[in-house]
Amino acid sequence: VTAPSDPLTVVIASPLEPELVERIRAVDRERLRIVHEPGLIPRARHVADHDGERPELGPPDLERWLSILGSADVMFDLDWYAPADLPKHAPRLRWVQTSRSGVGESLRRHGLDRSQIVFTNAAGVHAIPLAEFVVLGLLWLVKDLPRMEAEQAEHAWRSSVTRLLAGHRVLLVGLGGLGAEVARLLAGLGVEVWGLRRSDAPAPDGVVRLIRPDEFHTALGSVDALVVAVPYTAETHHMIGAAELAALPAGAFVVNIARGHVVDVPALAAALRSGHLGGAALDVFEREPLPVDSPLWDLPHVLVSPHRASVVDAENRLIVDLFTDNLRRFLDDRPLRNVYDRDRGY
Amino acid sequence: VTAPSDPLTVVIASPLEPELVERIRAVDRERLRIVHEPGLIPRARHVADHDGERPELGPPDLERWLSILGSADVMFDLDWYAPADLPKHAPRLRWVQTSRSGVGESLRRHGLDRSQIVFTNAAGVHAIPLAEFVVLGLLWLVKDLPRMEAEQAEHAWRSSVTRLLAGHRVLLVGLGGLGAEVARLLAGLGVEVWGLRRSDAPAPDGVVRLIRPDEFHTALGSVDALVVAVPYTAETHHMIGAAELAALPAGAFVVNIARGHVVDVPALAAALRSGHLGGAALDVFEREPLPVDSPLWDLPHVLVSPHRASVVDAENRLIVDLFTDNLRRFLDDRPLRNVYDRDRGY
Repeated sequence: VTAPSDPLTVVIASPLEPELVERIRAVDRERLRIVHEPGLIPRARHVADHDGERPELGPPDLERWLSILGSADVMFDLDWYAPADLPKHAPRLRWVQTSRSGVGESLRRHGLDRSQIVFTNAAGVHAIPLAEFVVLGLLWLVKDLPRMEAEQAEHAWRSSVTRLLAGHRVLLVGLGGLGAEVARLLAGLGVEVWGLRRSDAPAPDGVVRLIRPDEFHTALGSVDALVVAVPYTAETHHMIGAAELAALPAGAFVVNIARGHVVDVPALAAALRSGHLGGAALDVFEREPLPVDSPLWDLPHVLVSPHRASVVDAENRLIVDLFTDNLRRFLDDRPLRNVYDRDRGY
Repeated sequence: VTAPSDPLTVVIASPLEPELVERIRAVDRERLRIVHEPGLIPRARHVADHDGERPELGPPDLERWLSILGSADVMFDLDWYAPADLPKHAPRLRWVQTSRSGVGESLRRHGLDRSQIVFTNAAGVHAIPLAEFVVLGLLWLVKDLPRMEAEQAEHAWRSSVTRLLAGHRVLLVGLGGLGAEVARLLAGLGVEVWGLRRSDAPAPDGVVRLIRPDEFHTALGSVDALVVAVPYTAETHHMIGAAELAALPAGAFVVNIARGHVVDVPALAAALRSGHLGGAALDVFEREPLPVDSPLWDLPHVLVSPHRASVVDAENRLIVDLFTDNLRRFLDDRPLRNVYDRDRGY
């Protein structure tokens, strides 16, 4: 990847605040040409909405959009109009910075994972809010907030004992950037973090014991909670199924901040309904939006977060921090951060 | 304080599990005589219940209890029967290890704060669960869990943005053992912790800025949340009143884990009802149990915890860890930990 002498055309393809576009422009006013046409791209329905509402374009506007795509060297997010046709519509395109932490599923769906385009994800940006959701979910479960809130609704002052999160043992599946942030926060709270190791990479700070894949089922029997933070790939599809949930001790908790398909949701609902599991905090589901008739909505110790734990008010600023850093790296021919690896699938 | 050559009589006056009494006995089987008569003291209604259900004693049993008190050199908790008469009923008594983190209010109420008896509290034992409650309360407020739970109850999948706790600025009132634990946990979560400094003691780890009392009101205007963790004394009575709450920015949060009387509760309820404050997480109240007609029960962003955030399943073990360490110190004539200071009032 080298920077040409002509300005590089950078096309903003998803909603972004004008002041953030200005920050991108300021990276290099000579070597970059930033194209931001808010009328031709989706409009945000809320802060940090990267899907947005698709524009209704007449033929001339659509023509303009396709011509912009034809000039793109770099894009901020995939084309909203016809993502699968990106290599055809954007023949000069060399790099797409996406606003998603996990982009593999979407690239595979559109057949883009085998293209020559470099994709970078926004993983680190989402790690902090997702790790905060893990802390919130575990405290909500350990302190039995559903009961506290029910008693509050009845104006009932009941003495009883709560539990300490410190000293709990958590098995963390996924030791990448997201897992590292989860491990760091939980360790700071005195949680004993075990991590499932698939590769030979060193354990992130905060993980006190590494579990090999062949030790996984045994380890499940010794922990108080399972936190799923692994990327979604063919290998991780339903890696937490009925057998894994049954291996957890009675009363254990499950937190999923990865992708819905990593956990077999009917098996999870069954293990919660039977009372084997003590509860769950879930930000992701196999079908999203979660169907209105899903049993998960009403199970007593289940927190349903509508895949928004990672979406925070500071998100676009954090993503643009990453994008501007990557733009400088791209211009200087240095390695980009957060490159999607088609062989690993994330 | 020196150990006599006769065995010291240690009277257990509040509920404690037999195996924990055995651990106390094992400290020194020759120099300590442990008196534990479960029939003569309150019976626990739940784990770590230190009040317990008062026994109904006939005259002979009451006589026996008073005679036990008469022999006490050391007690675990105050006399349940007539605490104000302790100096009269227990003339040999030199030291009481209490199971409470804040004991000043109770000692003053019973007129015991001016007695010659040494009182030690169990402050450190409660610091970790209380600090966990602060983390839970702030995450519950920052992530708007009341709204998430209401939407879950409606099976409504709504996209929206949440907030990051990291980067929030918290003003912590009280930098003792409890405040230090709060600061440590919040700093680990990326919160910017400011601490109100009354003494010249150094700031605990995690506190990045010390606020002098004359800067207090100005500082209140610059923070996202106020966490009250100060002991209750004459000086801290209603130290958070209408003026302090009005000085907080609109939408700020308040967390109280100290004592109810540190915060003017009607002023707090008014600031919540008017919408000036964004919410509160409260473990303590001016009147406990909180009256059934208190407005706090039903205010939308208020978490009412019935003074049980500090009560955890591991509590008695932790208190006995402290007590046995203090017993060894007492026998060896070394300074006790957690001594109540009548001049400071805690």
